Amino acid sequence: MIELHQYCPEQQQWQISDFQTLRYPLLSDTKIWINLTAAHQDEQRQVLEFFRIHPVIAEDFLRERHPPKMEFSDSFSLLILRGFSAPDFSDYPGHSQISVLFNDQVILVKYHSPLDDSKIDLPFSAFAASNKFKDWVKKYIYAISSTYLEKLLQFEDELGELEDSMQSNGNDQKMAQIMKYRSVFRKIDRNLAYQKEMFSDLLYEEDASHPFKRHFEPIELRDFYEKFERLHSMTQMYYDQLSDLVDGYMSTSSHQINEKMKVLTMLSAVFIPLTFIVGVYGMNFKYMPELDNPFGYYITWGLMLGLALGLLALFKIRRWW
Amino acid sequence: MIELHQYCPEQQQWQISDFQTLRYPLLSDTKIWINLTAAHQDEQRQVLEFFRIHPVIAEDFLRERHPPKMEFSDSFSLLILRGFSAPDFSDYPGHSQISVLFNDQVILVKYHSPLDDSKIDLPFSAFAASNKFKDWVKKYIYAISSTYLEKLLQFEDELGELEDSMQSNGNDQKMAQIMKYRSVFRKIDRNLAYQKEMFSDLLYEEDASHPFKRHFEPIELRDFYEKFERLHSMTQMYYDQLSDLVDGYMSTSSHQINEKMKVLTMLSAVFIPLTFIVGVYGMNFKYMPELDNPFGYYITWGLMLGLALGLLALFKIRRWW
Amino acid sequence: MIELHQYCPEQQQWQISDFQTLRYPLLSDTKIWINLTAAHQDEQRQVLEFFRIHPVIAEDFLRERHPPKMEFSDSFSLLILRGFSAPDFSDYPGHSQISVLFNDQVILVKYHSPLDDSKIDLPFSAFAASNKFKDWVKKYIYAISSTYLEKLLQFEDELGELEDSMQSNGNDQKMAQIMKYRSVFRKIDRNLAYQKEMFSDLLYEEDASHPFKRHFEPIELRDFYEKFERLHSMTQMYYDQLSDLVDGYMSTSSHQINEKMKVLTMLSAVFIPLTFIVGVYGMNFKYMPELDNPFGYYITWGLMLGLALGLLALFKIRRWW
Amino acid sequence: MIELHQYCPEQQQWQISDFQTLRYPLLSDTKIWINLTAAHQDEQRQVLEFFRIHPVIAEDFLRERHPPKMEFSDSFSLLILRGFSAPDFSDYPGHSQISVLFNDQVILVKYHSPLDDSKIDLPFSAFAASNKFKDWVKKYIYAISSTYLEKLLQFEDELGELEDSMQSNGNDQKMAQIMKYRSVFRKIDRNLAYQKEMFSDLLYEEDASHPFKRHFEPIELRDFYEKFERLHSMTQMYYDQLSDLVDGYMSTSSHQINEKMKVLTMLSAVFIPLTFIVGVYGMNFKYMPELDNPFGYYITWGLMLGLALGLLALFKIRRWW
Amino acid sequence: MIELHQYCPEQQQWQISDFQTLRYPLLSDTKIWINLTAAHQDEQRQVLEFFRIHPVIAEDFLRERHPPKMEFSDSFSLLILRGFSAPDFSDYPGHSQISVLFNDQVILVKYHSPLDDSKIDLPFSAFAASNKFKDWVKKYIYAISSTYLEKLLQFEDELGELEDSMQSNGNDQKMAQIMKYRSVFRKIDRNLAYQKEMFSDLLYEEDASHPFKRHFEPIELRDFYEKFERLHSMTQMYYDQLSDLVDGYMSTSSHQINEKMKVLTMLSAVFIPLTFIVGVYGMNFKYMPELDNPFGYYITWGLMLGLALGLLALFKIRRWW
Ligand SMILES: [Mg+2]
Ligand SMILES: [Mg+2]
Ligand SMILES: [Mg+2]
Ligand SMILES: [Mg+2]
Ligand SMILES: [Mg+2]
Ligand SMILES: [Mg+2]
Ligand SMILES: [Mg+2]
Ligand SMILES: [Mg+2]
Ligand SMILES: [Mg+2]
Ligand SMILES: [Mg+2]
Ligand SMILES: [Mg+2]
Ligand SMILES: [Mg+2]
Ligand SMILES: [Mg+2]
Ligand SMILES: [Mg+2]
Ligand SMILES: [Mg+2]
Ligand SMILES: [Mg+2]
Ligand SMILES: [Mg+2]
Ligand SMILES: [Mg+2]
Ligand SMILES: [Mg+2]
Ligand SMILES: [Mg+2]
Ligand SMILES: [Mg+2]
Ligand SMILES: [Mg+2]
Ligand SMILES: [Mg+2]
Ligand SMILES: [Mg+2]
Ligand SMILES: [Mg+2]
Ligand SMILES: [Mg+2]
Ligand SMILES: [Mg+2]
Ligand SMILES: [Mg+2]
Ligand SMILES: [Mg+2]
Ligand SMILES: [Mg+2]
Ligand SMILES: [Mg+2]
Repeated sequence: MIELHQYCPEQQQWQISDFQTLRYPLLSDTKIWINLTAAHQDEQRQVLEFFRIHPVIAEDFLRERHPPKMEFSDSFSLLILRGFSAPDFSDYPGHSQISVLFNDQVILVKYHSPLDDSKIDLPFSAFAASNKFKDWVKKYIYAISSTYLEKLLQFEDELGELEDSMQSNGNDQKMAQIMKYRSVFRKIDRNLAYQKEMFSDLLYEEDASHPFKRHFEPIELRDFYEKFERLHSMTQMYYDQLSDLVDGYMSTSSHQINEKMKVLTMLSAVFIPLTFIVGVYGMNFKYMPELDNPFGYYITWGLMLGLALGLLALFKIRRWW
Repeated sequence: MIELHQYCPEQQQWQISDFQTLRYPLLSDTKIWINLTAAHQDEQRQVLEFFRIHPVIAEDFLRERHPPKMEFSDSFSLLILRGFSAPDFSDYPGHSQISVLFNDQVILVKYHSPLDDSKIDLPFSAFAASNKFKDWVKKYIYAISSTYLEKLLQFEDELGELEDSMQSNGNDQKMAQIMKYRSVFRKIDRNLAYQKEMFSDLLYEEDASHPFKRHFEPIELRDFYEKFERLHSMTQMYYDQLSDLVDGYMSTSSHQINEKMKVLTMLSAVFIPLTFIVGVYGMNFKYMPELDNPFGYYITWGLMLGLALGLLALFKIRRWW
Repeated sequence: MIELHQYCPEQQQWQISDFQTLRYPLLSDTKIWINLTAAHQDEQRQVLEFFRIHPVIAEDFLRERHPPKMEFSDSFSLLILRGFSAPDFSDYPGHSQISVLFNDQVILVKYHSPLDDSKIDLPFSAFAASNKFKDWVKKYIYAISSTYLEKLLQFEDELGELEDSMQSNGNDQKMAQIMKYRSVFRKIDRNLAYQKEMFSDLLYEEDASHPFKRHFEPIELRDFYEKFERLHSMTQMYYDQLSDLVDGYMSTSSHQINEKMKVLTMLSAVFIPLTFIVGVYGMNFKYMPELDNPFGYYITWGLMLGLALGLLALFKIRRWW
Repeated sequence: MIELHQYCPEQQQWQISDFQTLRYPLLSDTKIWINLTAAHQDEQRQVLEFFRIHPVIAEDFLRERHPPKMEFSDSFSLLILRGFSAPDFSDYPGHSQISVLFNDQVILVKYHSPLDDSKIDLPFSAFAASNKFKDWVKKYIYAISSTYLEKLLQFEDELGELEDSMQSNGNDQKMAQIMKYRSVFRKIDRNLAYQKEMFSDLLYEEDASHPFKRHFEPIELRDFYEKFERLHSMTQMYYDQLSDLVDGYMSTSSHQINEKMKVLTMLSAVFIPLTFIVGVYGMNFKYMPELDNPFGYYITWGLMLGLALGLLALFKIRRWW
Repeated sequence: MIELHQYCPEQQQWQISDFQTLRYPLLSDTKIWINLTAAHQDEQRQVLEFFRIHPVIAEDFLRERHPPKMEFSDSFSLLILRGFSAPDFSDYPGHSQISVLFNDQVILVKYHSPLDDSKIDLPFSAFAASNKFKDWVKKYIYAISSTYLEKLLQFEDELGELEDSMQSNGNDQKMAQIMKYRSVFRKIDRNLAYQKEMFSDLLYEEDASHPFKRHFEPIELRDFYEKFERLHSMTQMYYDQLSDLVDGYMSTSSHQINEKMKVLTMLSAVFIPLTFIVGVYGMNFKYMPELDNPFGYYITWGLMLGLALGLLALFKIRRWW
């Protein structure tokens, strides 16, 4: 199903329209908004051919997964963005990708995600207030950046709690959670790196005919870049702090194993020989002269105490405690 | 509450004034200092609208947390800086952020932090001595950089002591402290990286109309950059040295576990078989010929000594001790 | 054996031909396709000399292993590409390398790999549809990139399963598999880095006489670059995620060793002294007054229970459980 | 105390002189060398003010610790360098810093270090041979670089021995030494990075009025850069090799713990059940039918041998030995 | 001893000659090849002074160890290269360094190494075929690069075997070997990085009077760069793969320690309490009512079996097996 809205200049209003009624070339004051999210692959191809989209651009637009990119050509420009639709970073649900093909008159949109997210796949109503393409593209960029920001700011507290609780009583569940977060942040980091890069390139773009250069002020372009740079920088910091937790926890665990080994080894060193000695005098040999010695029992105790104290002194000297 | 000081050119002095009495545009020789720290969000918006601040800049100024940035526009320029208000690096209390909007006549300031810090949120009295904006902006930059420097220089000793004490007797508390420091330095590092980057960009700025280019000598601009570069470089070095401590402590712990395992395994290898043997002759079977042998006890001792010495020799050969 | 196809302009069709019948210089409207995969080293040299290939370029073309490169010279250009012929990333079978020497009239191809892979060593039939060299070179580039893409996309699921199963029940086989994957991705990463670099350089190439600049639109060149950049970025992310698994598994293992040491040490601390005590009263000394005490047995039990509970309390206080 | 030497052009020789007798501006053919190492802070300020040093430069010159830098201004240029005064890298004694302010006529020197090092704080006699400032500045640069070079070359052997001995018999003292070296090399690395960077910037300096550009040939400037680049590269390699030792030792320790655990676990698995069995037949119950069985003792031995051999076979199957 | 060969233009042939007979300046069509490997330091200095070598260049040429560099000056250019003379990477025998000073007429060579290697210290006979300096310098560059290539290609198999054997049965000897290889590759990496950098700089060199620019085609310069870039890239990959082995082996060891701890802890948890119980009834107290109970022995067995099964069930529930 092709969702198509057409702006009728005479009546100065938007109308739902049918793709089959469009004629090429478009009248110069017409404006068209098409959402291909629910369209078949065949319908999508048909629409792209109708607008004479360059095959290399069409191929990227049609892919269900393509890393974020911006491609500018004479006729249509392509913008692919990826947001984060899950409520938090405990799992990566798959890529939430919006692909936008646009020129000054036409905007073609396609959303692909394992999750429905109307914050990314904006309904037409979100656009009706303006018929400037500048405002529409800005809406998509802001929509994408806002799918990350709040969740990232909230993660700071989550991370602080994880840091504290790993110190006091770490366990396997928390460790598994940290590992999961790291994996999710790696994937998000890749998407944000592409988006940051894309807007960074735009700042250095010198071709004045680039649609972003024509429609946006420099201050707005820097704002786009900064939004994604900030998200990327936070994601990286969280990832690094999670890695520090993994490292630090391992170091703490090693120390604690060492402490326990110390206790176990001292305990064993003191009692294993003693237990051997009492075992010796528990043997049932007919002829064992010590057993008949009236002080044998006390001598054995003396011997054992001496041995125990000697070993403890040795450990003390070696600074085990 | 809007704190407003106005410089009256006729009387050549500063006066406390009321925002409601200001008229736009300002007289060309008026100067105004406004602190919005205690103002409501609504009052803040009202002031920003009064001065026709660009909405993209206004949005950044109004945010309570925004990474350090410098944005230059025709009317007003924005400077957001982050200092470190806590007395040392044992905890990160949250961002201490000062946002400054300024042109040649007006300076608008807003401070946001979980801690009161009059070293960052400078009182008006700190500025009264000069009415050049150059001096005022410099005061803020120096104030921010000085919230880090002394604490970082002192941390060198703290770190040296940590390094020594982890070698001689590490424990969980010290490890937790190291982990905490690392986490704090990561956060500080991000803020300092932004601030260093900001002044580095300024060194390469070519637009002569940039207010920093107009007001400051190159030697002063390099000084700003160098101050933050130095802070950033120290922070990174401390972070790296703390990480080296974590790694090194883990390696030392592994070695010590190995040493203890060696003691425990040798002890067990020698005594466990002996204890088994004495256990055998402690059994109460009616018919156990060895028990009746008059030399049985001595033969058993010989056997056990031989076994023990043999095992010790084996460990010696395998270079366990 | 030299496989040679020649385009006959008069008949407008391709014909199998014999290398010995070629005369230099070629007629200007002739086109020639030569596959040297099955040719002897001597035949290869003979062909290269016939076409006056620069010795430095000839040397690279003749090598059975040479990292991916693109070399442009006045007469012939060289393109060396590496694909991945194995069905998945569980083993690196060796380099699958295609070397292409071409100018506007002639294309010389040589494939070297431990595996037969007709997706890389394309049969002549794959080219017959077009006689533009542009289409032919594009075919090779797309063929190489497609030997990675599907396998990399599928690896995402494999990796997700590995991540989950390492958390719940890791074992040596899975660890060995992860290590193997890492090793394979390192090798692939190197090949993809060279190919990405090669097409990145092409984007910044300013010499308009470069054959790729003459034959391809900028949008196509960016597409080549993006294909390999994407493959490289995915490979790196997978490698990094596998490394995170290795780190994380080690940290989890350390924690679990610590937990087991805790159980073992507590168990030993409680029972080893008790076993010593019962051993003491198992000794067969003639004179051991406690044994004759009618309450001796009960007193001993009381003593042992007290000792056990005391130790458990001590462990509780030290937060071992 | 201000140490001042003045070159008297008429007599063509250097004379010790008193700062109070200097008059500003200086005669054009006078040359002055001033060492402020032993001067009070107040005397230092007085001298700097006398020569009209820019306050930003004066502030850096007066600091007792400032990372290496070179600042060029119209009147005086500043050069801050850091050497390494300790005899080897077993401890970092603190920064050894020489600050040099110079123009074509005057050179002001200040040394700050926890150690006296006349290789850095060169006596005036070292300069008397030449009155070209070029030669003097070169002397300081070479003096600084030579405080590192010999010690770094010697460290190669020390490192080789550490590598060998950690493999054969590592211990805590060696590990502590490695950790200490790493910490020292991190600090040195930072100083050398600044100095390398400083001379690298000089190679790209385009302002022909820069005093280094005026006084030195390009081949000399590249030599300065190369000296510090080489020191920095060696320092980094040593640091990295020490880190490899830390990692590798941890991996070796883990392996050895594993080996010992194997021995201990096999030993325990074989003997603990046997010891339990002999304990069973050491019980003193009135009615234990096995004890009366004339073959009970032999049956028990058979059972125990069978159990022991079965367990050893099981371990063999599982490839524990 | 100074080995000197002089080309006599009249006779069009090379002759052994004596340094003392040379007169400065040289005749314009003379060519001279001098090998100073066996010359005393004094002779070396004498030769360098004879040819008026710049003192900064002379100093580098005379050093027995200097990292690879290329220095171009008006009179003589300096090329320092380092090869790898040992048969494989199991040990780093020290630097094998060839220093070449050359202009269009004269070539001065000095070799320094702990190993004799005529592949680097080429005999004069290797040059006699050509009297173009271009061919001679090329010979040295190719000779150096070929001292690495074959050995690096062979190391791939060695590494594959190490990877396989560390998985199946790692041991201390293999670990020590891996550590040694890493150390050797670090040193080689540094030398190759310098050489790669040197030829990379040459590609961007714009001064057309540079001797390499005058004598070599761009395709040859790119070939030099590529040779060292390839060696460097392989070295880095091997180093990284060895590090992956170290990491992975540690992770595998941790897992295996965990497995063994599991067995040991379960074994101990089951048998230690049982051994305590049988110890209790092995005590010799006069009054122990249980001993007289005719079912005491069976009740004890029941109790012990119940305890053992209960503990095993508990471990099963906690998923220890
Ligand atoms: Mg990424
Ligand atoms: Mg990227
Ligand atoms: Mg950032
Ligand atoms: Mg990590
Ligand atoms: Mg980290
Ligand atoms: Mg940070
Ligand atoms: Mg950051
Ligand atoms: Mg940054
Ligand atoms: Mg710094
Ligand atoms: Mg550092
Ligand atoms: Mg670390
Ligand atoms: Mg590590
Ligand atoms: Mg690779
Ligand atoms: Mg590479
Ligand atoms: Mg590359
Ligand atoms: Mg990428
Ligand atoms: Mg990634
Ligand atoms: Mg890792
Ligand atoms: Mg350093
Ligand atoms: Mg640094
Ligand atoms: Mg630096
Ligand atoms: Mg170097
Ligand atoms: Mg290195
Ligand atoms: Mg490390
Ligand atoms: Mg190296
Ligand atoms: Mg290097
Ligand atoms: Mg380099
Ligand atoms: Mg390479
Ligand atoms: Mg690699
Ligand atoms: Mg490593
Ligand atoms: Mg690694």
